Amino acid sequence: MTLFDPPAEPVEPAAPVQRCRLLVAYDGTGFHGYARQPDVRTVEGELVDALTRVSGGTVANLACAGRTDAGVHAWGQVVSFDVGGEVDLRRVRDSVNGQLGPEIVVRAAEPVAPDFDARHSARWRHYRYTIVNRPAPDPFLARYAWWVGTPLDLHALHLGADPFVGEHDFAAFCRRGPAGSATTRRVLESRWKDLGEGVLEYEIRANAFCWQMVRSIVGTLVDVGTGKRRPGDLVATIRSRDRARAGGIAPAHGLCLREVGY
Amino acid sequence: MTLFDPPAEPVEPAAPVQRCRLLVAYDGTGFHGYARQPDVRTVEGELVDALTRVSGGTVANLACAGRTDAGVHAWGQVVSFDVGGEVDLRRVRDSVNGQLGPEIVVRAAEPVAPDFDARHSARWRHYRYTIVNRPAPDPFLARYAWWVGTPLDLHALHLGADPFVGEHDFAAFCRRGPAGSATTRRVLESRWKDLGEGVLEYEIRANAFCWQMVRSIVGTLVDVGTGKRRPGDLVATIRSRDRARAGGIAPAHGLCLREVGY
Repeated sequence: MTLFDPPAEPVEPAAPVQRCRLLVAYDGTGFHGYARQPDVRTVEGELVDALTRVSGGTVANLACAGRTDAGVHAWGQVVSFDVGGEVDLRRVRDSVNGQLGPEIVVRAAEPVAPDFDARHSARWRHYRYTIVNRPAPDPFLARYAWWVGTPLDLHALHLGADPFVGEHDFAAFCRRGPAGSATTRRVLESRWKDLGEGVLEYEIRANAFCWQMVRSIVGTLVDVGTGKRRPGDLVATIRSRDRARAGGIAPAHGLCLREVGY
Repeated sequence: MTLFDPPAEPVEPAAPVQRCRLLVAYDGTGFHGYARQPDVRTVEGELVDALTRVSGGTVANLACAGRTDAGVHAWGQVVSFDVGGEVDLRRVRDSVNGQLGPEIVVRAAEPVAPDFDARHSARWRHYRYTIVNRPAPDPFLARYAWWVGTPLDLHALHLGADPFVGEHDFAAFCRRGPAGSATTRRVLESRWKDLGEGVLEYEIRANAFCWQMVRSIVGTLVDVGTGKRRPGDLVATIRSRDRARAGGIAPAHGLCLREVGY
């Protein structure tokens, strides 16, 4: 307190509200997605219950960077919320991990400025989609990667990834949201990484994503990899804004929200 | 076929016996170990049942390179067996994978000489033990790595790994087998790899291993990493041949049979 601080106001009794940021990883296999829903097990539902128990207060203004679908994983989900009173965030992290880990794990917990919002403050989201491209599946990646038994042409995959970069109307690659919702997104990065032994990672980073956009792009790119589509046709597919012209939706379990940029 | 191919030989009468070799990966989480036992789910039990169904004949002389314990995984388990009649091994691989995958996966299946035996022909076995050394566990490695929350001193781990190389009587690191069973083994490689972000892999390769030897060595090395033991004391621990002087047994789920050399 300095001489210039205004006198304490009477409206702020007892404990002030603290905004907190969590970095959260989860195995999405056993959840009906991130967003809380009645009667089903969700990541948000488990997290709010645990945070409420641990903090002993009300958890409010919960926001997350990416509302992942059922079966989708996260390594770097970001969650913000307000909690009343003095909280020891290291203790919050360890207690939540003791209750929910290792299925849901708080990797870090820190106080943030009151205007930080995990959703609205985010500048970009980075998703990774993993494919195992071998004649036989992989027991250790089965929960976290899509097994594609047909050989994929990596050169075609690389060519196919390029047209997605830039600002486009991704209506052809979006499951319909509420009528009139915008489907224009800015993709900053779209590329394949070959990890060897048939493990392929598709990395995509964008300011935001529409519903099932990554899985729809991956489903279409796998068509390119098997030779069912030509990479040169993808520019026209994007421009068509026609959902019927894109490929199928790749399975949820290959997708992971890796990182969010602020 | 070229001009130099020999003429097709008259087929051998009826069905000769063919010895086969399988390269098998499995997630050990749901099994009571490799070796068949009555009334419990084992990898060998599942495999024999599937092979018998697929080949339509009797499966005999089954052998494996490493009889992994309950909860231990394998990436490169080798299994040999005899089967009567003409078998299309690619079809065997795909059918077994269709029935047992992705929990148990046949990565490769090939015919081998009749004197090949997965156990007795093996020159070395390579096991890997994975540790996640971070304040919080990892949802994606939880089934395949031991989470150690206490910081480990990597330099001490490296020093501690060295004394195991060479031919030693490993009685101090073996759970008692049948009375009088030999506990001398030749370790060809014993070292830690730091994969970054707290993921540590301990690689050990030996002509053979006694019961729970790798997990006992890892349990002892983790004591070295936390400072409970000094790396310089391990030579004496090995020489003592005294089970009571080694550390605890590391959990099964961090261990994986990676490769077998012939």
